[in-house]
Amino acid sequence: MSSVLPFPRVNALSAAEALALAEPVAQRLAETAIARDQAGGHARHERELIRASGLLALTIPGAHGGLGASWPTFYRVLRRLSQADSALAHLFGFHHLQLAGVLLFGSEAQQQRLLGQTVEHRWFWGNALNPLDKRLQAVDTASGYRLDGVKSFASGSVGSDLLTLSAWHAPTQTALIAVLPTGAAGVTVNADWDAFGQKQTDSGTVAFDAVHLAAADVLQPPGATPTLRASLRTQVSQLIMANLYLGIAQGALGEALRFSRDEARPWFQSGVAASVDDPFVQHRYGELWLKVRPAEALADAAAVTLQQALDRGDALTAADRGEVAIAIAEAKVLAHRAAVEVSSELFELTGARSTSARYGLDRFWRNARVHTLHDPVDYKLRDLGRHALTGAWPEPTPYS
Amino acid sequence: MSSVLPFPRVNALSAAEALALAEPVAQRLAETAIARDQAGGHARHERELIRASGLLALTIPGAHGGLGASWPTFYRVLRRLSQADSALAHLFGFHHLQLAGVLLFGSEAQQQRLLGQTVEHRWFWGNALNPLDKRLQAVDTASGYRLDGVKSFASGSVGSDLLTLSAWHAPTQTALIAVLPTGAAGVTVNADWDAFGQKQTDSGTVAFDAVHLAAADVLQPPGATPTLRASLRTQVSQLIMANLYLGIAQGALGEALRFSRDEARPWFQSGVAASVDDPFVQHRYGELWLKVRPAEALADAAAVTLQQALDRGDALTAADRGEVAIAIAEAKVLAHRAAVEVSSELFELTGARSTSARYGLDRFWRNARVHTLHDPVDYKLRDLGRHALTGAWPEPTPYS
Amino acid sequence: MSSVLPFPRVNALSAAEALALAEPVAQRLAETAIARDQAGGHARHERELIRASGLLALTIPGAHGGLGASWPTFYRVLRRLSQADSALAHLFGFHHLQLAGVLLFGSEAQQQRLLGQTVEHRWFWGNALNPLDKRLQAVDTASGYRLDGVKSFASGSVGSDLLTLSAWHAPTQTALIAVLPTGAAGVTVNADWDAFGQKQTDSGTVAFDAVHLAAADVLQPPGATPTLRASLRTQVSQLIMANLYLGIAQGALGEALRFSRDEARPWFQSGVAASVDDPFVQHRYGELWLKVRPAEALADAAAVTLQQALDRGDALTAADRGEVAIAIAEAKVLAHRAAVEVSSELFELTGARSTSARYGLDRFWRNARVHTLHDPVDYKLRDLGRHALTGAWPEPTPYS
Amino acid sequence: MSSVLPFPRVNALSAAEALALAEPVAQRLAETAIARDQAGGHARHERELIRASGLLALTIPGAHGGLGASWPTFYRVLRRLSQADSALAHLFGFHHLQLAGVLLFGSEAQQQRLLGQTVEHRWFWGNALNPLDKRLQAVDTASGYRLDGVKSFASGSVGSDLLTLSAWHAPTQTALIAVLPTGAAGVTVNADWDAFGQKQTDSGTVAFDAVHLAAADVLQPPGATPTLRASLRTQVSQLIMANLYLGIAQGALGEALRFSRDEARPWFQSGVAASVDDPFVQHRYGELWLKVRPAEALADAAAVTLQQALDRGDALTAADRGEVAIAIAEAKVLAHRAAVEVSSELFELTGARSTSARYGLDRFWRNARVHTLHDPVDYKLRDLGRHALTGAWPEPTPYS
Repeated sequence: MSSVLPFPRVNALSAAEALALAEPVAQRLAETAIARDQAGGHARHERELIRASGLLALTIPGAHGGLGASWPTFYRVLRRLSQADSALAHLFGFHHLQLAGVLLFGSEAQQQRLLGQTVEHRWFWGNALNPLDKRLQAVDTASGYRLDGVKSFASGSVGSDLLTLSAWHAPTQTALIAVLPTGAAGVTVNADWDAFGQKQTDSGTVAFDAVHLAAADVLQPPGATPTLRASLRTQVSQLIMANLYLGIAQGALGEALRFSRDEARPWFQSGVAASVDDPFVQHRYGELWLKVRPAEALADAAAVTLQQALDRGDALTAADRGEVAIAIAEAKVLAHRAAVEVSSELFELTGARSTSARYGLDRFWRNARVHTLHDPVDYKLRDLGRHALTGAWPEPTPYS
Repeated sequence: MSSVLPFPRVNALSAAEALALAEPVAQRLAETAIARDQAGGHARHERELIRASGLLALTIPGAHGGLGASWPTFYRVLRRLSQADSALAHLFGFHHLQLAGVLLFGSEAQQQRLLGQTVEHRWFWGNALNPLDKRLQAVDTASGYRLDGVKSFASGSVGSDLLTLSAWHAPTQTALIAVLPTGAAGVTVNADWDAFGQKQTDSGTVAFDAVHLAAADVLQPPGATPTLRASLRTQVSQLIMANLYLGIAQGALGEALRFSRDEARPWFQSGVAASVDDPFVQHRYGELWLKVRPAEALADAAAVTLQQALDRGDALTAADRGEVAIAIAEAKVLAHRAAVEVSSELFELTGARSTSARYGLDRFWRNARVHTLHDPVDYKLRDLGRHALTGAWPEPTPYS
Repeated sequence: MSSVLPFPRVNALSAAEALALAEPVAQRLAETAIARDQAGGHARHERELIRASGLLALTIPGAHGGLGASWPTFYRVLRRLSQADSALAHLFGFHHLQLAGVLLFGSEAQQQRLLGQTVEHRWFWGNALNPLDKRLQAVDTASGYRLDGVKSFASGSVGSDLLTLSAWHAPTQTALIAVLPTGAAGVTVNADWDAFGQKQTDSGTVAFDAVHLAAADVLQPPGATPTLRASLRTQVSQLIMANLYLGIAQGALGEALRFSRDEARPWFQSGVAASVDDPFVQHRYGELWLKVRPAEALADAAAVTLQQALDRGDALTAADRGEVAIAIAEAKVLAHRAAVEVSSELFELTGARSTSARYGLDRFWRNARVHTLHDPVDYKLRDLGRHALTGAWPEPTPYS
Repeated sequence: MSSVLPFPRVNALSAAEALALAEPVAQRLAETAIARDQAGGHARHERELIRASGLLALTIPGAHGGLGASWPTFYRVLRRLSQADSALAHLFGFHHLQLAGVLLFGSEAQQQRLLGQTVEHRWFWGNALNPLDKRLQAVDTASGYRLDGVKSFASGSVGSDLLTLSAWHAPTQTALIAVLPTGAAGVTVNADWDAFGQKQTDSGTVAFDAVHLAAADVLQPPGATPTLRASLRTQVSQLIMANLYLGIAQGALGEALRFSRDEARPWFQSGVAASVDDPFVQHRYGELWLKVRPAEALADAAAVTLQQALDRGDALTAADRGEVAIAIAEAKVLAHRAAVEVSSELFELTGARSTSARYGLDRFWRNARVHTLHDPVDYKLRDLGRHALTGAWPEPTPYS
């Protein structure tokens, strides 16, 4: 059972300190982002860069040996990495999502053991949790469960040390949630992710063949009702999405501005000597800016709301959770649109020459487009409108 | 010369306290807003309501006997009033703009005298300041100036006690800025404002016929270069606009939601029993909400930025001012759009029956549409884009 | 039963001839449109102008003594009138909708009698047909039916000579459709329409108190299944809406352009001597133009499709009707948006001075906003998307 | 000098006949479009398919042995090919643009010779004409000119038989326009086009090293003033762009609909059994449809307007040309937006699984995004707005 206490954050890393740790990582990722986007596949070297930075312990409470940063700080770091490379940032973000799962679903002993070892061994976690997908089945055994089946869209699975997974348990008609070493016997991680964007997220398929799952590694046993607080894991995840999208939008806007300043030529009918002086160019950048800026403001506000909810511990009410879900839905829709629209519209400003493959400017749209399909924006809009109309909170689900 | 010190705010009214003062005023205004919108003209009774509330002293520093609220608090109050009645809120907002003018342009003695008497006599100020309009001329006399000419768009002039005005001074080819009792000999205030919205803003024409202006009432003499800090008056004004627009958007959305809940009927093809359960209705309200919410977040952020700049006193730099101008431009564009778009689109949701004149739901669009034409949104977008491209700050002008 | 033959159009009035008849009417309406919009109420004089023009016989086949214009010609005329005065154009449009009802639902004898007398007496028809509203009840009598109850949104009822009505018939649980002289005993037409736009459409409530309805005046008796062709009346009506909206958009754009050319001042930061030379102004007018122009093209195309379907007579198939419904839905959504958006956005271009009540420029938005709520645009979009996805045609209803 | 007569079209191919010729070509192109998009490079085999179809003679008048199709027919064929493969369609379109150049700039003898041989040898033409680019210089020689320099963005140059080119002539400070065999001595065609879309358009750089240009192959000599009619070449080109964009939009929408029908899964909160029954999905497809449909209508209308202008021969007036330019600008802006927006937004409907590289659905956006940067949409909008405001026609330039 999860702790009733808020996450301790004594001597926690400040946002400025965390961003200082992240900055060189972001810059290193940016140097090779275009080439790695084109190559796709597994980014072993860059994963090691992140591991070496110590940032894998960013959200682990100080009591377990981690850096103890707040969630708002984590999201700022995530966004910075996403500006440079949204695929690697996704791996980083989903690693911390798994840690949030341990904090929200795990017992104190599990937290102590799993988080402590994560700090000690610098483990990188991957995701195989999707309660709506029943293709992975758990069967009771004497010492735990036997797992058979498959999980797809398993972000970060390739090259991970541990996986969080959900598995369908037929007798109770519920899903269990558990932790499993990626190297466990019978686990096969397939590098079969072939989307046209977010190529290096290692989001392939994981096959389980008579895999032994120890009872001690089960965070939520079959038939258990998760606490309201545990249901915040979805919100941690949704706000990871929002900040990844926002980072893409910021990265795209930054690259577009740089191109306009350094390389774009004025249109022959513009009557100005530099593209940056064309009133239509200035006006359109004003529009793009106004897609990014509100998403930033609401993403930051949502992170504060989430942290406050986490800090309430078991005192969390449905209304508290609902306010988090609404705040994050607002941020996520805005970030979704900022990412997709800025990354597509920027070309109106940078022009024909900017489409050369050597600039790789299309990667922002491809990354945004693939990543923003995690769950449909229309249902977020519905949730927001329904709340405004009736006061109803979004139902706690794996997506809201 | 203006004080180098920040506005003192000891024992200042908190936002909660100020909103508590404003709430009954807003509710009283709302009761008659539809009828007064249809009637137009001068709202003597409602101006007295505002005067009686004490809120005319809201932004006057405690040292001068005022309530000493911060500018963020003022803007929250303004927005609340605008939700109920954006015309009366405009009078309230422009009253405080004139007080900001005294604080930013006036000497310590002028501040002491004018603000102190404003508290004492509960004066209501009006606006006749528009440096771009040269039709009002100031001619030097022995004891000050003689004023002849006309000012239009003089918001709050009808029924005001004092006016702030600008007048063109031919010898120096500059404008002076001064204070004048509305009842001064030779001043004629014409109630000739006839716009289709914001009808009760008393924004008519003021004629000056050989009016004597005392030297002691001149805040900025001809030929003087205003300080950078004094140029923040424009920003105080622009953020008043933004919050008025935002209040209109919030008011419109609130009324639309109420209509949808209480009076709207489900469309016969919707398959639901209540309009609020129609997925298209929910989705559209989600969209409207996402026009209002970012404008709120950025208006609040801009108010904090403005307050910090004011608090810097004479240490204010061009970059400080520029950041204020950018933050307020962001908020203003979003609020502009929220007001115009929400007030027009809401009818898709409330339906044909909501167009009956007895609901007065069109007043939000008419008010938003008239008010948002103060200065063109396209030049704000240009300012934002140009800043993103080149780092240039918006030029200090009466509109930026 | 309705004729199996297409509407005869021998010696029919051409579009150019019809527009030449309409032009002086449109110009006369335009002269007083601002004043009449402000006054509201019944436009007796202007209705007589229309009657005197002979245009009330525009769509009546030559065989019945009418002008025999095609439906595409009718819609062009309607659009021209709507540019000048969309309220009076609505009366004109709905008059012809009633005539279409006689042509589509009436027997040959009814057509002969009702249309012939309409030509002879220059009758003006009004609408009290709304099959979804069951408040008007028809009870069988020896010689026909007794009508009791009420109809609302009865466009053109005030001052009309004849009404088309629907009435609920409880024994068969269906609605009958019939014609009734407005002056029949027991009929009370209430001039209680009080919407904030389309003020002179005489769309009030009609009360029926023991009114005798002769069997000979019933176009569709209770329990009868209307032919597929008769269901085109809805499409005639929907395309009337589309052309009214389009006329509003065109009228609004035309007035805005005139204001920009003749009265608008350049913004002080624009660097140009005339508002029409401001690149932002040119660009925005380009955008407004691209809202109007596609609506025009699709409205014209839809009118041709409708005419072809009408010309097929009883050979009309469900697919024929479906194609009409899709073509008209396309045009209607575009015209809806053009009207609402152009009439609101034009003020960004004409500026603060254009909001003076003497220009009456807000009437376009108010008229568009009221009129476009006839049925929800979201269900038209759904119909279009569903057809693209599945091939399903819009269900024949009073709105599709 | 160009013929004063309109293009003869006796016994010309009808649209239906031309589309029947094109259909198997389009289907063959579609079969390999995904694979060839990923591979990039030169599509020799597919160019031969087009050549073998006979469609390279589509716009060549019957008098010269061609198929003599009208320009509206040509654009329909172009659009059909673009739905399947917008890169190969571009080659096809630009081939015909070069033929239009011969018809508009060439003497009767040149037309006879060049078009006749094109039919006879099934020549494929490429483009090296860009009058704004002065890097290719023409120097007078005894028998013509010597060409030195470079042309970039030379669409269709790789694998072409002939090129149309412009070259700067310093003595007259004008550009000449001429025809040159691609295989001429000193010409090097570089396959260095590396954009992220429209990969197989062979739009690389062509280098000229002391190339001999015969006087007989010069269509427009240095210093000559092109006729107004010749300036229609730009409009032929702009409408090629519009139809290519429109084909992309149609192709993207078609593939999205197919995916939604055959492969998409309903969202778990939708309450429906199939994605196509989700009201949000239907509604969004309605929106996408309304981006494509108006572009179609205006592209067809513009083609008719262009044909009429071409048919006027030397009687063409500036207003005639202006009307063509406005009609094509309307169509081009709508098609531009339809292509970019539909190809990006479709993913909201097809969902995460549709981003697998095996579906290649991102190619539509990449193709649209690269191709729509030919010239800035903002200047088209300006041209449209300026015309509405002042009646000014777009200036004849290589882009308008």
